[in-house]
Amino acid sequence: MRTIQLGTYTVFVGDFKAPLEELLATKDYSNVFAIVDENTALHCLPILQSSIPTIKTIQIQAGEINKGLTTCQNIWSSLMNQQADRNALVINLGGGVIGDMGGFCASTFKRGMDFIQIPTTLLSQVDASIGGKLGIDFMQVKNSVGLFKDPTSVLVDTGFLKTLSTAEVRSGFAEIIKHSLIADREQWNQIKTITDLSTIQWDDYVFPSLLIKQRIVEQDPYEKGIRKALNFGHTIGHAVEGLALEGSRPLLHGEAIAIGMICESWLSHQIVGLPANELEEISQFFLRVYDHYDLSDLPIEDLLNLMSNDKKNIGKAINFSLLPAAGQVHINQTCSPELIIKSLDYYQSLLQLA
Amino acid sequence: MRTIQLGTYTVFVGDFKAPLEELLATKDYSNVFAIVDENTALHCLPILQSSIPTIKTIQIQAGEINKGLTTCQNIWSSLMNQQADRNALVINLGGGVIGDMGGFCASTFKRGMDFIQIPTTLLSQVDASIGGKLGIDFMQVKNSVGLFKDPTSVLVDTGFLKTLSTAEVRSGFAEIIKHSLIADREQWNQIKTITDLSTIQWDDYVFPSLLIKQRIVEQDPYEKGIRKALNFGHTIGHAVEGLALEGSRPLLHGEAIAIGMICESWLSHQIVGLPANELEEISQFFLRVYDHYDLSDLPIEDLLNLMSNDKKNIGKAINFSLLPAAGQVHINQTCSPELIIKSLDYYQSLLQLA
Repeated sequence: MRTIQLGTYTVFVGDFKAPLEELLATKDYSNVFAIVDENTALHCLPILQSSIPTIKTIQIQAGEINKGLTTCQNIWSSLMNQQADRNALVINLGGGVIGDMGGFCASTFKRGMDFIQIPTTLLSQVDASIGGKLGIDFMQVKNSVGLFKDPTSVLVDTGFLKTLSTAEVRSGFAEIIKHSLIADREQWNQIKTITDLSTIQWDDYVFPSLLIKQRIVEQDPYEKGIRKALNFGHTIGHAVEGLALEGSRPLLHGEAIAIGMICESWLSHQIVGLPANELEEISQFFLRVYDHYDLSDLPIEDLLNLMSNDKKNIGKAINFSLLPAAGQVHINQTCSPELIIKSLDYYQSLLQLA
Repeated sequence: MRTIQLGTYTVFVGDFKAPLEELLATKDYSNVFAIVDENTALHCLPILQSSIPTIKTIQIQAGEINKGLTTCQNIWSSLMNQQADRNALVINLGGGVIGDMGGFCASTFKRGMDFIQIPTTLLSQVDASIGGKLGIDFMQVKNSVGLFKDPTSVLVDTGFLKTLSTAEVRSGFAEIIKHSLIADREQWNQIKTITDLSTIQWDDYVFPSLLIKQRIVEQDPYEKGIRKALNFGHTIGHAVEGLALEGSRPLLHGEAIAIGMICESWLSHQIVGLPANELEEISQFFLRVYDHYDLSDLPIEDLLNLMSNDKKNIGKAINFSLLPAAGQVHINQTCSPELIIKSLDYYQSLLQLA
């Protein structure tokens, strides 16, 4: 069992059972609730029930599109109807949607219950498991209602990854790539040689990736400065994801962020001097690993509007974190709408060449 | 200007202008928003605008019945549409509903903006201005969705009380009485001689009352123990208020809490030995100052259900804070449903004698 200590809580990387059973033995919870979706109810809940046979469940519908106030009302109602009190525990068993929204609901139900995150997707294991960021989408803006609140603990067990599709694993991999691109050139040099995801031992990538995120989050828990580095690929990626979600060709989070990282690498080349050969390496790697996605039917105006509402913005300027080189990052970069549009054109031109 | 320092923030008691202008001069907010209702828009906003002419306003409908998710969605939408970012400030200008809900919305918009409380009612000045408790009502249970979050500062200016009706002032007075009953026998001895509220100099009561609340909240910021003392009168009072709100005879918060304090004083006499003469004094004082309210058409079963959902409960037992004597309190007392029903009967019997 490898552990990462973060302020008031611990991230356990390994088999979830021992740390969970120890926690339950030391705390006297009045009740334990698991928040699951139809997928984790089927594939993950039985594994959890072997540790906590009496666990009560709250099932929601999977998908980013359900990460909103309507689902929160269902979760709060269910807690209320099952007489949850402040001394009860919530276990969020699922991907980022469950972790973010279940954590938000637990933190705000009766002004706050304890909650444990058991991320079951690669994306949530490397992204959502450190940082205490909770929230839901509102008015199509991702995570625009939420708060910062530490979980009681986080249990990262890569055994759950066996329950995922290839597309979901690849989506999570995007955040691992991002961590290497902003902070670990050596890991990037290793990653860029990967050709087959199916042979990867995920523990070898998840733990180092968590250490990068820990280092950044500890320096800046409330995202006033360097934590914005983690936003690389996300300014454009979030907007693409938001619009894609409304249309007939939705994207997984990491798939959208991969597109965002290509566009923002191009912006990095224009603005902070990312060398042309590194831009080329990054773009070609993403095009090799991820499906190609035609952006031409997403209205540019809507994309720019979504970017304007990003939480990292100050005033009207759209905020980016850009790479002067692979393994390094500059935060608080701003780009004109014209240049942002050109970065999307760059992605489109790559598709035509491919 | 008298001040009370609480952890990360200061409560200023006196003219609000100087501390507000000082804060705005030291912090570089991108925008300032005032959340108001139709009453404070008319009577209080012009006073605030004399300090901040460029303030943007978000107006909601007054009343506890509007303290729910629907209004939160209006507030969040309005912040979104007016391009509020995390570096903007929200000023909650109004009573407890605005303070609790506006604070909740500000704390959760883009994961948290700064907010200042300017309570304009006596109730919110003595009750909501200390403690960082924010929230909204959900499924008819008061404050059942919310969080603990400190404001940037609190400006208590009793000048705003001139804008209130007699009924509203009397409602706020209930919390001052409560503070004296749980913690300050001397102040209670002074209060119980009051016959005419119109001649009171409120500064003389507000500041000492805030000091009592500060003492209790500092000992127990997250309501794990002694802070529950402040719940005296509220277990029954909240339930009565909740049902009254649905019917044709709504009660102001303090009016409901006054009824709750009579019933819970009777429970105090039964369970923790409040002397009969003190029970008599307390009951007669409340009956003299507050209107009499017939409880007989509120369904007992519904009242008990609402009490069962109170946040202070642990498991199924209904939790009370009771008085062994005026000026003292015992927390974590539990009562059977039968005894609770008898305490309501006691109140009804007083009305018949009066």
